[in-house]
Amino acid sequence: MSLLLEQLIEAFQVLPGVGRKTAQRMAYHVLERGRDGGRRLAGVLAEAVERIGHCSQCRDFSETEVCALCAGAGRDRQQLCVVETPADRLAIETATGYRGLYFVLQGRLSPLDGIGPRELGLDLLARRLEGGEVAEMIVATSATVEGEATAHYLAQLARQHGVRPSRLAQGLPLGGELEYVDRGTLSHAFGSRAEMKD
Amino acid sequence: MSLLLEQLIEAFQVLPGVGRKTAQRMAYHVLERGRDGGRRLAGVLAEAVERIGHCSQCRDFSETEVCALCAGAGRDRQQLCVVETPADRLAIETATGYRGLYFVLQGRLSPLDGIGPRELGLDLLARRLEGGEVAEMIVATSATVEGEATAHYLAQLARQHGVRPSRLAQGLPLGGELEYVDRGTLSHAFGSRAEMKD
Ligand SMILES: [Zn+2]
Ligand SMILES: [Zn+2]
Repeated sequence: MSLLLEQLIEAFQVLPGVGRKTAQRMAYHVLERGRDGGRRLAGVLAEAVERIGHCSQCRDFSETEVCALCAGAGRDRQQLCVVETPADRLAIETATGYRGLYFVLQGRLSPLDGIGPRELGLDLLARRLEGGEVAEMIVATSATVEGEATAHYLAQLARQHGVRPSRLAQGLPLGGELEYVDRGTLSHAFGSRAEMKD
Repeated sequence: MSLLLEQLIEAFQVLPGVGRKTAQRMAYHVLERGRDGGRRLAGVLAEAVERIGHCSQCRDFSETEVCALCAGAGRDRQQLCVVETPADRLAIETATGYRGLYFVLQGRLSPLDGIGPRELGLDLLARRLEGGEVAEMIVATSATVEGEATAHYLAQLARQHGVRPSRLAQGLPLGGELEYVDRGTLSHAFGSRAEMKD
């Protein structure tokens, strides 16, 4: 096999869920029927890995220092919704009528994997809460064991700064990753979120 | 969402079997944990779509005018195995002890889709058979209706040039795409191929 083709098949395997067989299909597909698309993917990908960083306020992906959502007018700055991933933020934005701001953890507490408060940017979050602008912190972490542990940690952090923590209503399927919940369930759970008590 | 991120998610959808949700996961994965891999994929992909063409002898993908297999010594030039796709060629090369040469149709006869002898490079194949070097043509097209029709057409072409056509033994699952057949079945079917009679 062509060396370059072999390299292409290996390179595709960086993508999640893509093993050798799928990578091979992708390479053949691009070469047989999708050269223009492949050229475009190569260009956009090269630019994205260099230029997309994290918003200095919410940690979501952004190609500017402050993302469009954080910089934009018309959002309620008293509400802050904390999510695990950019995909979760997008799911809430799409499914609900939420008009507040977000904070993206880029993970959840997992001491065994070396993911603690520092890795989730909780120092940045604490400074945000100190600012005094936030009244309610909506904790939208997953309904998993680690997501629940993260939620309790975040609720304590909120209370320490006089901010009211709330949590999405039970109704999320147990063990479910928020990103894969259907719109209706997510919207309902978001709307009937409950304040977190001690 | 960042415009560049949106473009990246769209660009990933050129890949086979990749819808919006999967494309989004790929983009996030590359940005969160795989920037080096993403950079490499972009570079290799850009190079591949420009530099990989088709071997002038066998029509397999190649970055040189004649591919390494066709150019190499140590292959039996009296045997020519005709396959539908580069993936099929690779499957035979991996599963069997075949040491002859190949011809890659890059498809199969499908008049309704406008794929006729010209699209499959059968003029090139005919010139090859005229050369007189080939003694046996092993027809390894799929066990599908179109694959069988292609096989019969190829067998006629071989006979016209005094070349003996053979076909992989029955044993391939009916309707099965050759690329997905397990190694054992493929190796057995290849070994017990039978000469094609009128
Ligand atoms: Zn932001
Ligand atoms: Zn070749």
